[in-house]
Amino acid sequence: MIPNRNVLWGRAIVDEVAKAGLDAVCISPGSRSTPLTVAFAEHNGIDVFSHLDERSSAFFALGRAKATGRPTPLVCTSGTAAANFHPAVIEASQARVPLLLLTADRPPELRDSGANQTIDQEKLYGDAVRWYRDLPEPEADDRKLRSLRTDVSRAIWTAEGPPPGPVHLNVPFRKPLEPTEIPDDVPEGFSERFPLAAEGRDGPFVSPLSGAPTLDRTDREALGEAIRTADRGLIVAGPSDATDPTAVAELAAATGFPVLADPLSGVRFGTHLAREALVVCGGYDSYLDERVVGRWSDPDLVLRVGAPPTSKTLQFFLRDSGARQVVVDPAGEWREARFSASDLAVADPNRLCRALAGQVDGPTVDPDWRERFSEAETGYWELIEGETDRLFEGAVLAQAFERAPDPGTVFVSNSMPVRDADRFARPRTADLAVFGNRGASGIDGVTSSALGAGSASEDPLVLVTGDVAFYHDANGLLALSRCGVDATVVLVNNDGGGIFHLLPIEGFDPPFTDQFKTPHGLDFEPLGDLYGFAFERVESVERFTEAYRESLANPGTQVIEVRVESEASHRTREAIHERVVSTLRG
Amino acid sequence: MIPNRNVLWGRAIVDEVAKAGLDAVCISPGSRSTPLTVAFAEHNGIDVFSHLDERSSAFFALGRAKATGRPTPLVCTSGTAAANFHPAVIEASQARVPLLLLTADRPPELRDSGANQTIDQEKLYGDAVRWYRDLPEPEADDRKLRSLRTDVSRAIWTAEGPPPGPVHLNVPFRKPLEPTEIPDDVPEGFSERFPLAAEGRDGPFVSPLSGAPTLDRTDREALGEAIRTADRGLIVAGPSDATDPTAVAELAAATGFPVLADPLSGVRFGTHLAREALVVCGGYDSYLDERVVGRWSDPDLVLRVGAPPTSKTLQFFLRDSGARQVVVDPAGEWREARFSASDLAVADPNRLCRALAGQVDGPTVDPDWRERFSEAETGYWELIEGETDRLFEGAVLAQAFERAPDPGTVFVSNSMPVRDADRFARPRTADLAVFGNRGASGIDGVTSSALGAGSASEDPLVLVTGDVAFYHDANGLLALSRCGVDATVVLVNNDGGGIFHLLPIEGFDPPFTDQFKTPHGLDFEPLGDLYGFAFERVESVERFTEAYRESLANPGTQVIEVRVESEASHRTREAIHERVVSTLRG
Repeated sequence: MIPNRNVLWGRAIVDEVAKAGLDAVCISPGSRSTPLTVAFAEHNGIDVFSHLDERSSAFFALGRAKATGRPTPLVCTSGTAAANFHPAVIEASQARVPLLLLTADRPPELRDSGANQTIDQEKLYGDAVRWYRDLPEPEADDRKLRSLRTDVSRAIWTAEGPPPGPVHLNVPFRKPLEPTEIPDDVPEGFSERFPLAAEGRDGPFVSPLSGAPTLDRTDREALGEAIRTADRGLIVAGPSDATDPTAVAELAAATGFPVLADPLSGVRFGTHLAREALVVCGGYDSYLDERVVGRWSDPDLVLRVGAPPTSKTLQFFLRDSGARQVVVDPAGEWREARFSASDLAVADPNRLCRALAGQVDGPTVDPDWRERFSEAETGYWELIEGETDRLFEGAVLAQAFERAPDPGTVFVSNSMPVRDADRFARPRTADLAVFGNRGASGIDGVTSSALGAGSASEDPLVLVTGDVAFYHDANGLLALSRCGVDATVVLVNNDGGGIFHLLPIEGFDPPFTDQFKTPHGLDFEPLGDLYGFAFERVESVERFTEAYRESLANPGTQVIEVRVESEASHRTREAIHERVVSTLRG
Repeated sequence: MIPNRNVLWGRAIVDEVAKAGLDAVCISPGSRSTPLTVAFAEHNGIDVFSHLDERSSAFFALGRAKATGRPTPLVCTSGTAAANFHPAVIEASQARVPLLLLTADRPPELRDSGANQTIDQEKLYGDAVRWYRDLPEPEADDRKLRSLRTDVSRAIWTAEGPPPGPVHLNVPFRKPLEPTEIPDDVPEGFSERFPLAAEGRDGPFVSPLSGAPTLDRTDREALGEAIRTADRGLIVAGPSDATDPTAVAELAAATGFPVLADPLSGVRFGTHLAREALVVCGGYDSYLDERVVGRWSDPDLVLRVGAPPTSKTLQFFLRDSGARQVVVDPAGEWREARFSASDLAVADPNRLCRALAGQVDGPTVDPDWRERFSEAETGYWELIEGETDRLFEGAVLAQAFERAPDPGTVFVSNSMPVRDADRFARPRTADLAVFGNRGASGIDGVTSSALGAGSASEDPLVLVTGDVAFYHDANGLLALSRCGVDATVVLVNNDGGGIFHLLPIEGFDPPFTDQFKTPHGLDFEPLGDLYGFAFERVESVERFTEAYRESLANPGTQVIEVRVESEASHRTREAIHERVVSTLRG
């Protein structure tokens, strides 16, 4: 009935995954992981995404988890396969994304013995995982199986947090790995004798009720009082997949505080913007220039949720403001590298925002302060509108966001795309789920993360990426066909590391061009034949917007390449910024 | 003169690298690593290989180190870039290949603070590195700089072993990262006042004389006595880049012991085979079948050098032989996962072989025993010759080795290519440097490792790889143009994981095809347009050998794809094996 202990073990793991409500898994082919692979594949309630490159697999799971809030388990065989997960594990740890790593391993007696494809997998990811467990050796044993089911439940609730993050279960298996029948390996009648061990419960083996940190009443009221008495308050929403924009909007409406909303904060786009009396700002990366705000009064209270904002201008503005800055972090970590914040609230930010909103009777902010931001914001986007019909990197981001499907998912690469999104993506009431990998801000795994996010929903997926990131995770494109994801990929190709034009190293050439800009001259069109997507190179904003609209209206995947000159784009950014400054400082 | 402390620091590091005689570096573009990148780029004696994907970069450095025996330093920026080195670090650790990892990092005050692109890089690779050091903060300080130069010297000698392996220096830098002049950051006259700190010595700061373990006379003589009195001795040479084939040949000639030489042992191919009275065997993976050797006497003494052999048949033969097995390992590790070996000699294998040869007066082995192997070997290859003119995976490997350029470098992928090389690559006197990644036996990084090995010599480079490995490290192909390496790539495309046909899971379909064989249907020809190589698909052994000859005679890179059906190849292997058995058991 149950052919051997590995089958029993694999099924118990998968059973708990399914009972926790997880509906998909990412599997890379391998031998040692056979019991897990077989058990996942035979389970009707779980979709299998098969990935040949474990690095891409892990980023796919990461992207999917960002979109769903739940982990997509990752299965790989023993050896360096598991090390290929490492970049995504770090990103997940720092961006607080649930991941469940199931790495198959040799049994204990074969470790450190020269056995083939055997490495030291113990604590392979160091402190980057929330929890690590080397599972015991499979056996048809009542208590062991209850322990196993508890561990899988625990792995999932730990991965889901708060705070969410990666969890690593190392899973040793001894041969036979396939479901070959071994007489008496699982004694006849085992399931009947130990139904809890063999079949688990109707639901998860352990049903978690996960609390989140909440301030006590005294502390909350003190914070509420500070907000009520602030004249020039601000809310800063940094990158986060966990911020509830309606909670932030509630507090903003109650206090009248302007909200400076990072493009990855969840707050810059969405139907919550339709709420009256909100000032949600997206242009601050330009207009918080010292030459503009030097004439403004300083803020006196800043409430910060999410990770540090992408905008350096905003970071400097806060650093130099002298304001009381309250960082809200449910994990009690310190994520404020300018070291100018004065208060830490270890609390769930959404609950805290709602609770604080309830303590405020009506807008308390100085109307002039609020008006400053409102006017700057209006003036900024009017000016930008006239600048983004000519082709440069910022215009592509502006158009891609302005015309993004509603509802839709937009994934933005690190390096220049996220910075251009920060500056040129205007707040919209559209229901856009906007993601990027701002935990460690790498350019690795971007395509896979985007396709993973896209796999989680029927909404159209847009990926805006650069040429180095596109090259780096070209393997991720295999998921288009193998995982059945369609995307509109906007490839901003500036032939190398255009971001380095923003840095002073630009002035030192050599080695600037060869070692930093690193032009590669790659023509990505052939990848369309390899991975089955349509490819179009566009040379004007007009043609871009047409191709973009066509792609969104059609099935399949289209890569729209916009070739840009990074130095020229950078100069255009600077010129626009100068116009913003001269217009807004009035 | 020296614009700032980071320049001083970067130059000191590079100065020591160069003075240690290293002549190349692999650099991936990034900002935090700017002081290292600038210092390497400005040094005339060091070639810079620029890689956009850190995973490929690390494998390139690994392959180059396999070919040169010396590390090629690796430079990357902070963040997940460093995690992408992890797979190669593990391979280097287990295969004993020198690597020197220079990961740039944020300065201490910015760690764990939410600073951008900042992760926990402390001991990032765990126990996989031989030595880890978080370098101090750069400063124009006499003692600090002497410490720095000592650390770089130490890192290199530690990486070079014995045993060789990866070493990790984490290198924090504070802005400015570019060579901007900071008045008094490096005080005027610093170099004159502290010439040793600023300029180092004429040679390395510390010149190492690295000893290797050597047995004392009593132990060596006891071992020599065991060899002299053995009637049926064997030498087993497993995968190793460190085995000196002439040392093994010397012992084999002195004792008359047959040598079972793994294709990656350094012993199966080479001019040492021209020596008289040697029996170097390559066909044992087939003819050590129990049905053949069941009628032979058991060996009574086995001397093992290198890692465990690739051949499972050989592993089982040794396990079941009851022989005294002496494992020679200079690192004193245990690499014998059948747990049938009885003796460990912690000693340099080359010196030991030579010393033991000197203790033996002439062939001591039973001539019949020796003849068994000699006859089996001759009979085996006669039979194989008639089988490898029809297209199957084994024939491709047989032809690729038979016709490999002399001198030449041949890199063999894991999974099926190395197993087919084991069985079908006949020993040759040609000067072939044959490499594979058998430390952790992953299929990741194969192309990059091969190109790195090829970059170390003017000899032609052949890579024999499979379709999954070729896909996995497709990014590595960028090194063809960027690092100026030419190769003849033999791509054995069986559309997925053909190796799984060797495993019992083949009998369980589903999930065999979807989750193990995983046919991807990729047509790799477009990659030729992307990365600039010629692509030809061949459909016969005859056309393969022609295309192979043409490629070797021409510059540039040619990918010769042989499409094969993995199941049919497997059946052919089995059929040939059955003929071998029925012929040889005679």
